Amino acid sequence: MDRDMLFAARARGMKRSVIRELLKLTSNPEIISFAGGLPAPETFPVSEVAIASNRVLWEEAAQALQYGSTEGDVRLRRDLAAMMKADGTPADPSNILVTVASQQGLDMVGKIFLDPGDTCIVGRPTYLGALQAFRSYQGVSIGVELDDNGMRPDLLADTVRRLEAEGRRPKFIYVIPDFHNPAGVTIPESRRREIIRIAREGGYLIVEDTPYRQLRYTGKDEPTFQSMAPDCVLSLYTFSKILLPGFRLGWAYGPDWIIDRMVMAKQGMDLCTPPFNQAITHHVIASGALEKGLKKTVALYSRRRELMLSCLDNHLLDIPGIKWTKPEGGLFLWLTLPEGMNTDDMFHAAIEEKVAYVPGSAFYADEDDHRSMRLNFSYASEAQICEGVKRIGILVHKKLVTS
Amino acid sequence: MDRDMLFAARARGMKRSVIRELLKLTSNPEIISFAGGLPAPETFPVSEVAIASNRVLWEEAAQALQYGSTEGDVRLRRDLAAMMKADGTPADPSNILVTVASQQGLDMVGKIFLDPGDTCIVGRPTYLGALQAFRSYQGVSIGVELDDNGMRPDLLADTVRRLEAEGRRPKFIYVIPDFHNPAGVTIPESRRREIIRIAREGGYLIVEDTPYRQLRYTGKDEPTFQSMAPDCVLSLYTFSKILLPGFRLGWAYGPDWIIDRMVMAKQGMDLCTPPFNQAITHHVIASGALEKGLKKTVALYSRRRELMLSCLDNHLLDIPGIKWTKPEGGLFLWLTLPEGMNTDDMFHAAIEEKVAYVPGSAFYADEDDHRSMRLNFSYASEAQICEGVKRIGILVHKKLVTS
Repeated sequence: MDRDMLFAARARGMKRSVIRELLKLTSNPEIISFAGGLPAPETFPVSEVAIASNRVLWEEAAQALQYGSTEGDVRLRRDLAAMMKADGTPADPSNILVTVASQQGLDMVGKIFLDPGDTCIVGRPTYLGALQAFRSYQGVSIGVELDDNGMRPDLLADTVRRLEAEGRRPKFIYVIPDFHNPAGVTIPESRRREIIRIAREGGYLIVEDTPYRQLRYTGKDEPTFQSMAPDCVLSLYTFSKILLPGFRLGWAYGPDWIIDRMVMAKQGMDLCTPPFNQAITHHVIASGALEKGLKKTVALYSRRRELMLSCLDNHLLDIPGIKWTKPEGGLFLWLTLPEGMNTDDMFHAAIEEKVAYVPGSAFYADEDDHRSMRLNFSYASEAQICEGVKRIGILVHKKLVTS
Repeated sequence: MDRDMLFAARARGMKRSVIRELLKLTSNPEIISFAGGLPAPETFPVSEVAIASNRVLWEEAAQALQYGSTEGDVRLRRDLAAMMKADGTPADPSNILVTVASQQGLDMVGKIFLDPGDTCIVGRPTYLGALQAFRSYQGVSIGVELDDNGMRPDLLADTVRRLEAEGRRPKFIYVIPDFHNPAGVTIPESRRREIIRIAREGGYLIVEDTPYRQLRYTGKDEPTFQSMAPDCVLSLYTFSKILLPGFRLGWAYGPDWIIDRMVMAKQGMDLCTPPFNQAITHHVIASGALEKGLKKTVALYSRRRELMLSCLDNHLLDIPGIKWTKPEGGLFLWLTLPEGMNTDDMFHAAIEEKVAYVPGSAFYADEDDHRSMRLNFSYASEAQICEGVKRIGILVHKKLVTS
């Protein structure tokens, strides 16, 4: 059997996720890891989940343990529409598709929109899992530079113009508007409008990926792309960061004609998202435990973010040319080292110092940036944040001397 | 926005699943439905799941509610390997990938093996969800006729010869060896050997889909394709029929080089299968509840099968040219009406008689067969089976008179 020829072209190009492989390296408990995007387990509402899961098992097992509808549990879809409305986004439950977290949403976007060679616009940097999903359908992600306010509309306009001229019309513009992963930046309302204008003029879809939106620590909410342009925006949400990741639950919201097609795709992909997990989550939301828990999570992560920023000031502010983002929410900040330094090369030295990050190069569709690293501040304890940033400080100072 | 042009070619050809749309029609409680492939809810081990889920929440929430490994929970993978060994299939836990039930396994098979236009071999008839999964990657399923012993090796040999001559070498042969869905037939050992011989000679992979294997009511187990040819067989299993479908759990087993690629694909598809559901299932297996429950499930379905077969004798045996399969296990039997009758045309009359089936035409990759219907005997109660088969009898007799 010629194994290589047996695979489809899309599978021959597949690579393992850098982050998931890195996470294996960091399983040593002595290593302080800022690498993963893990929520803090102390935020998981264990009692409330236990109460809800017992209720589901004693009162509705015949439905919750059976096959469910592809679209998702109607009660949960109503809850989600209500949550979206409370967040300023008018939402109809029938335009919600419950997904196996937002990664499945991204996979579906690739599946229904990208023919081999089709282009789509992503940030420079952007979420690694999106790149992987789009690449797995042989889509070509074209990067547009971010600044402190997210994707730059001037460069976006240049890029779509160039692609149109080359006959490589992009299928969609992928944005992470709130507390960007990995960059930690947020797109202000005015810039959202500019991006929507460019999308509407060109007839492009916008894919709005907003897993961290409810985790804001400072500043005020920007309106969602969905609320501003429901005709041309598909939004992806997840419970992974606001409730817990272990249920693998998320949802997609968009116009009928897209959601319909996603439902058809999902029938062939897994028939339905686990009804048991959906029923539990419905009861957790109905009990008010999600909302209550979120307040505590926001307070916890806000403290950790504050602490990481102040530790960075303590240990790294003296390095000329260094900079880092000051995210208003989310899980990550983005540290850029002085010219000439290389976070890929430094990674193994970091592991020796017993601290881990994700090298920035993992987050680029095209030419890499080797000066950056992503730091997560949700998972490590306060003590670990202090010690871990100190270790990064030591490492960078050492490398600065030897470089 | 030109909506049609925005979709990828693979999405433009997507259709809603006939079965899932039919199931919506049959939600009227007065209709006795033999249409779905639902397990009986009275087989769900609710207490055991409650005990296991409380244990998971109180003892291991920090892991079970967090992200998990893409490959799956190591404890569950060990359980599955042990189950496979007990079934005569030597199995290494590291060659197991836990999936979102076996539908995700089928989707992955399409994703990693099928380029647009690539062919694969399926039965005539075959599982609708497999057709949907393969079609969603623009694969072309080529049907090979079944008889009472499953896929016919002589016709398989002819078909691969013809395809090779046309330069359309098939990527894999998809078989449902045990209690076929929808046909209800099982492939005997000697014929399995013949199919393996053809696959090895041509260098084709065999995809063995065996969701019902543990549900045998009569006769003795045939060896799995996996046990006979581990070098060229990828096997797909699911918990949906042997435990419950609402967790959406299944697994794939195969050679390293395939499982590795599936793991890469899964990283971009959903990162991991719900760790919570995996942990509960591990404890349900460890407690012995799966094995104990299976004995009861087999006893229940065996009675229902027996009953359906005797009701068919009572109400339909007098019709000249009619026949049905007598499955040794599984959930379905396959009824073929006399020449000239059409189960698609009859479907709405059946709904008026308040009984539902799936028209056989749903299960064909190419030219349909319009004389058949799939009947499920796992879900309806004994009383419903008697009444429902009677209604089918009335319907067929009526149509026979008017046709």
